[in-house]
Amino acid sequence: MEMPEEVAIVASETSPFTRKESSIFELACNPCLEIFRKTNIDRTEVDSVILSTCSTLQYTSSIVSEMLGIKPKNSYRLDNLCNSGTSAIISAFCEIAAGLCDCVLVIGAECETNDSAKKLQWDLTRGSFNLPVHWASLFARSHMRKFGTTEEQMASVSVKNRRNSSRNPIALFRDPVTVEQVMNSRMISDPLKKLDCSFVCTGSSALLLASKRKAKELTDMPIWIRGIGQKTIGASLSQVLSKGEAGLNTTREAAREAYKMSQTEPRDIDVVELHDAFSIMEIMAYEDLFFTPKGQGGKFVAQQQLSINPRGGLLGCGHPIGCTGIAQTAEIAAQLTGRAGETQVNGCKTGLIHNMAAAGSSSSVIILRS
Amino acid sequence: MEMPEEVAIVASETSPFTRKESSIFELACNPCLEIFRKTNIDRTEVDSVILSTCSTLQYTSSIVSEMLGIKPKNSYRLDNLCNSGTSAIISAFCEIAAGLCDCVLVIGAECETNDSAKKLQWDLTRGSFNLPVHWASLFARSHMRKFGTTEEQMASVSVKNRRNSSRNPIALFRDPVTVEQVMNSRMISDPLKKLDCSFVCTGSSALLLASKRKAKELTDMPIWIRGIGQKTIGASLSQVLSKGEAGLNTTREAAREAYKMSQTEPRDIDVVELHDAFSIMEIMAYEDLFFTPKGQGGKFVAQQQLSINPRGGLLGCGHPIGCTGIAQTAEIAAQLTGRAGETQVNGCKTGLIHNMAAAGSSSSVIILRS
Repeated sequence: MEMPEEVAIVASETSPFTRKESSIFELACNPCLEIFRKTNIDRTEVDSVILSTCSTLQYTSSIVSEMLGIKPKNSYRLDNLCNSGTSAIISAFCEIAAGLCDCVLVIGAECETNDSAKKLQWDLTRGSFNLPVHWASLFARSHMRKFGTTEEQMASVSVKNRRNSSRNPIALFRDPVTVEQVMNSRMISDPLKKLDCSFVCTGSSALLLASKRKAKELTDMPIWIRGIGQKTIGASLSQVLSKGEAGLNTTREAAREAYKMSQTEPRDIDVVELHDAFSIMEIMAYEDLFFTPKGQGGKFVAQQQLSINPRGGLLGCGHPIGCTGIAQTAEIAAQLTGRAGETQVNGCKTGLIHNMAAAGSSSSVIILRS
Repeated sequence: MEMPEEVAIVASETSPFTRKESSIFELACNPCLEIFRKTNIDRTEVDSVILSTCSTLQYTSSIVSEMLGIKPKNSYRLDNLCNSGTSAIISAFCEIAAGLCDCVLVIGAECETNDSAKKLQWDLTRGSFNLPVHWASLFARSHMRKFGTTEEQMASVSVKNRRNSSRNPIALFRDPVTVEQVMNSRMISDPLKKLDCSFVCTGSSALLLASKRKAKELTDMPIWIRGIGQKTIGASLSQVLSKGEAGLNTTREAAREAYKMSQTEPRDIDVVELHDAFSIMEIMAYEDLFFTPKGQGGKFVAQQQLSINPRGGLLGCGHPIGCTGIAQTAEIAAQLTGRAGETQVNGCKTGLIHNMAAAGSSSSVIILRS
C-alpha cells in the first residue's frame, strides 16, 4: 500500500458525559461550537461534516450543519454500533487523503435514552442472552479458565480507570472505587459485577481533521494520523467464537495493520485509549494489541508501563455509543499536544486508539503521532 | 486539487423495485449475490462494505457482511436521506483513492414500509406542510410564474420517464401514461398531480468499486469515476429559498465541481440519471445541471438531445430512498458498458448522475466515463 496523503487532527473537544436526556442536535453542536471558539477556522472552510450516532432520526448531519451555520460539500450520518466513532474518523481521513476535502468536522453524539443500540437483537442464536454483558461474561469465564485470570485482576482495571476518571472533569463517574467495592457490587452476569461494566450514557465529542496544507494554517500543534487498521468478521457471537476461543481476533488484525502502516511497534506507544466496555475487555485488549503476551493480560494490570485509558476509559467516563471512538481519539490528540489537563501523561509522542463493537465482531485501531 | 487515484466501477446490479414488505437484509444481499455470481471476485477481496439505507436498525452493514460471507476491514451504514446513495459511493471512492482499500462493495437498500424518511419532520417552519410534495408544489408554481412553464410540460416529463420505464424490467411502473392521464390524475398539492410524483418503494442495488490495479483483474470494461461534486446548504426549506427563488443551488454547485474535476462540459454528457422525485424537479435539474439555460427547462422536455433517465428515473422506477443514488449509478455504469438491455442508449461514453435530498438542500453529482 502506498502511504496516503498526510492528515492531521487540528482540534478536538469533548462535552461533559451525563445521564441527561438531551437533543441529539444540541449534543452534536456543543463540542463543535467550542472548536470554532478556540480555533481560527472559518466555517466556510469546512468541506464535510460526518456525524457518528446510533440515533434513528433522519438527515441528522445536514440538520447539524445548518445549526452550526456550515455549508459543507457533503454531510452524512454514519453508524456501526459501538465502533461508529473511529469508522467516522477513518472516513474523514479518506476524504482528505483522497484529495476531495481539506477540512472535515467529525462529530459523535449519543443520548442515553436511545435504546436501539443497547441490545444485540439481530443475533437470534443468543436467545434472551442478548445484552453485551452476556458475551462479556463468557469471555471473562473463558479467560479465567484458560489463563487463571482472577476476578480481583478484573476489579483492578475498574479501580485504575475510576481513579483516572476521578481527575477528568468531563467523566460521568468522578468517585474512585476500591477492589472491594467492585467485588461487592451487584452481580450482573457471573463473574461480572456492576462495577466491571461500563455505563451507556449521554455525550458528545468532535474533531477537526485537515490536510497537511490546511493543518499548517490552523494549528502549530497538528497531531498526525499515522496508522489505521480495521477488521470486521460479521455481527454475531458465533463468528467471534468460531475458533473456539474468546479472543479479540478483529482487534489483533486491526492492530497489526495499524502498526504496519505507521511503522511502529507496541513498545513505541506512549498512551492508549482502549475499548474497556467491561473490565475483562481491557485485559483481553492488552494481549490483542500486543502489549503483553496472550494469557498475561491479568498480570499486566499491575505491571503497566504504558498509560492506558488516562481519561478513565469507558468504565470511568461512560459509554455514549456512537461518540465513544471520537472521545477516545479526542483524548489521545489532547494528550499528544500536552493539553490533557489533569489527566496528562508526561512526554507522550505516540498514541493508540482501540474501538470495537458487539463482542469484538468489528474493531478499529488508529495510531497518532505529534 | 490534485487528481485522486483512479477508481472504477467494476460491477453493478439492481434488484426489481416492488411494493413488497421485505427484510432490509434480504434486500441488501440480493444484488450483491448477483455481483458475486457474475464476476470472478473472491469474497475475501472485499475490503469494505458500505450500506446506504434509512432503515433504523442497528449494525446493519456488519450483519449484511456476515450474511454475504464477507469479512471486510470495515463496514458501516450511512444515511443522508434521498441523497444517501451517492454519498455512499463517494465515501467508497475516497476509501480507494486514499489507498486504504482496493475493493469496496456499496449497497443501497430500502423498504417501502420504513416511514421515518418520508416526512421532513425536523423543519418546524414547514408546519403541517412537511411532505416532499409540498415544497415541490412551491417550486412548480414559482417556475410557472417566472418562466411560463406549463403543467403539460411537467406532465411530459412523466410521460417520457414512464415510456422509458415500460422497457425496464426492474421498474415499479411498467405501463406508459399519456399527458392526459397525468393531467387528469388526482391532484396532490396544486399544481402537482399523482402522476407528477415519484413513489417511495422497496428496492436494492449494489456496486463494486475497485482501484485501477484491482479493476484490471476483475473486468475488461471498467467504468471510471471521473468527476465528483457535492454541496449541502442545510436541511430546511428556508435555506433553500433564502435567495428568494426556487432553484437547485446545491445542484448547480455540485455540477460545476463535477464538470471541473472531470474536465467535461455539459455538452460532453451522453446519458444522465437525474433526481426526478417530481416532474418539476427534472425540469429544474435540466437548468441547474447546465443542459439548458435558466427558465428553458420546460421547453427542453420536448427538445432533448441527451438521453435523460433512460431507466425511467424515479418517476418510472420508483424511489427506494437510500437505494436511489446507487440504482441511478448502476444504470449509468450499465449504459456505459453497453449492457443496459432494453433501455440502452447507443454509443454513450460519458454519463452523469444527479442525486439530491429534501428540496435540494443537498445535492451530489457524479460523472462516469467508459
